[in-house]
Amino acid sequence: MKPPIQNDRFLRACRREPVDATPVWFMRQAGRYMAEYRAVRASHSLLEICKTPELAAEVTLQPVDRFGVDAAILFADILLVLEPLGVGLEFVGGEGPTLRRPISSADDVDRLRDFDVTTELGFVAESVRRIVGRLDGRVPLIGFAGGPFTVASYLIEGGHSRNFVATKKLMYAEPQAWHRLLARLASITTEYLRLQVVAGADAVQLFDSWIGVLSPQDYRRFVLPHARTILEPVAGLGVPVIHFGTQTAALLPDMRSAGGSVIGVDWRIDLADAWQRLGADVAVQGNLDPAALLAPWPVLADAARGILAEVAGRRGHVFNLGHGILPETPPDAVADLVKLVHDESRTGNQTGSAFRL
Amino acid sequence: MKPPIQNDRFLRACRREPVDATPVWFMRQAGRYMAEYRAVRASHSLLEICKTPELAAEVTLQPVDRFGVDAAILFADILLVLEPLGVGLEFVGGEGPTLRRPISSADDVDRLRDFDVTTELGFVAESVRRIVGRLDGRVPLIGFAGGPFTVASYLIEGGHSRNFVATKKLMYAEPQAWHRLLARLASITTEYLRLQVVAGADAVQLFDSWIGVLSPQDYRRFVLPHARTILEPVAGLGVPVIHFGTQTAALLPDMRSAGGSVIGVDWRIDLADAWQRLGADVAVQGNLDPAALLAPWPVLADAARGILAEVAGRRGHVFNLGHGILPETPPDAVADLVKLVHDESRTGNQTGSAFRL
Repeated sequence: MKPPIQNDRFLRACRREPVDATPVWFMRQAGRYMAEYRAVRASHSLLEICKTPELAAEVTLQPVDRFGVDAAILFADILLVLEPLGVGLEFVGGEGPTLRRPISSADDVDRLRDFDVTTELGFVAESVRRIVGRLDGRVPLIGFAGGPFTVASYLIEGGHSRNFVATKKLMYAEPQAWHRLLARLASITTEYLRLQVVAGADAVQLFDSWIGVLSPQDYRRFVLPHARTILEPVAGLGVPVIHFGTQTAALLPDMRSAGGSVIGVDWRIDLADAWQRLGADVAVQGNLDPAALLAPWPVLADAARGILAEVAGRRGHVFNLGHGILPETPPDAVADLVKLVHDESRTGNQTGSAFRL
Repeated sequence: MKPPIQNDRFLRACRREPVDATPVWFMRQAGRYMAEYRAVRASHSLLEICKTPELAAEVTLQPVDRFGVDAAILFADILLVLEPLGVGLEFVGGEGPTLRRPISSADDVDRLRDFDVTTELGFVAESVRRIVGRLDGRVPLIGFAGGPFTVASYLIEGGHSRNFVATKKLMYAEPQAWHRLLARLASITTEYLRLQVVAGADAVQLFDSWIGVLSPQDYRRFVLPHARTILEPVAGLGVPVIHFGTQTAALLPDMRSAGGSVIGVDWRIDLADAWQRLGADVAVQGNLDPAALLAPWPVLADAARGILAEVAGRRGHVFNLGHGILPETPPDAVADLVKLVHDESRTGNQTGSAFRL
């Protein structure tokens, strides 16, 4: 039996219901910028933490305990789904992923190992159950998976990429293999998200972080149908679904069309402008530049207030960064930002007036 | 005496005058993807080529001779303006720039060496004169400089950056030093572009390539006034001015406001959508994904036709990529693309009908 959620601001905002204050959480809110996290990492690799439910639960809870964010997000990595495919996932040195056997051809696509998501990724379900138990209803838990383009790009590039040349070459030169690959990833991802929801996740986010390197035409042709294949059935699970990408200013209507009850927006567009392009019938999440957390407090506070002011009086805003927290981020800035978002949006809701700008 | 320009399609399109066919050139059209260029590089460093007018002229002419592009672009590097500042510019290994002494504080900004642009960058003027002589009026010559944000980012990061953390930290923490720095760069850049135009450049492009990493708010506050400081006087020199950046889908109206008679657009937005946001009273340049040149010909041809079709019947389109040619590009694809752009836009203008899609 899951305990009822006490602080349900995040879920209410996702459903565009009234809230007492704007909910706030951060992508990569559990990570290297926190001493508590580094203490765990000192004796465990990233993959060990992901695969040890007790450790995953511990680091997942760290930012909830320390900052009072309105949602927890499962500690995991979007590339965990790649390991059972047999491509040799490693996190060498820091946190950057490397594949020992990236794929580069139609044959490679067809040779990817079949696997049962429930069995091979069962440790993630166990992490979700532990986290839900330890949260004890304080805040909701967000599960997540990588989006089909983003996961495919790592599978093909073998790691992070600057120009995504190998990915685009395969996409253009072998469109049938590309679509087989993305259909396969979409099927795995749908099962993987279902596994997390069944285990107790209260919402999920699809991180198609790198779709913004595609032209809108290419996104529509090569990615959108597969994103929809994931987002439609997952929407049927009855939890909010956040669809996130970066560099998406011109892709927002297409992302909306692919699915998601909340669209995650980066800082490269004014949030009100983004919402305008998305339409009023969807919630938005974002969109502070992660680098703003490295700024002196008055600059950070102004930037956060600017975002709150842009969407003041509208239902359905989840405050977040436009991408993950940077490792250089001072934790105190995160704490102060959470407090500001709560305090100033609460004031705003009470008075219905403008924020202090 | 400069000979009159025989093929003036590019200049006419920049001025939104009728053309017989859409003009086409490519950012980094002289570069590593060409054997002719690699042959020169085999015995000369990148900086040597830039500083030896005869060599700069030779590589500048290579793509004009081979592909029949409608404009030459000066072979140079946007960071040449940094060397006289005393920061230790090097191109280590391949073509990636590194500064031995990047700046990180207000004091560093104030310690940057004063220099006379005409003297210290006189070799660029000499390159321009040589190129104009060798072109003998075949096509116009485009001069260029880096935009203030982009050049500042290299000055601060010391090389290419993924998240521009040091740049943004200085911008946020030391806004006065930031504005002093950008004003200084703007002054140098204005002089530098004037030098090129006086020497014979028929148009200039301001490459503020990385502005798309900024939020629109930050662009307006920290960059736009300085971009305008460059673009306004340069516009007064009577040549077309192209203002270029990447990841700018939401920045286009602000770029337009900063200046430029042509706005360079990357592939992350449909070109017709971009032009809509810019307004009809400006020309546009772009916007094929450079990776499309690595695709099989039918895919590349379709993508190019798609761009031509989007802006068919409108005056003021210069065909280009959305960023520089990738080193992996097959030269034959470039040749075929130039021919397609000319052939199919000529058809389009004659019939006034749609392109084959």
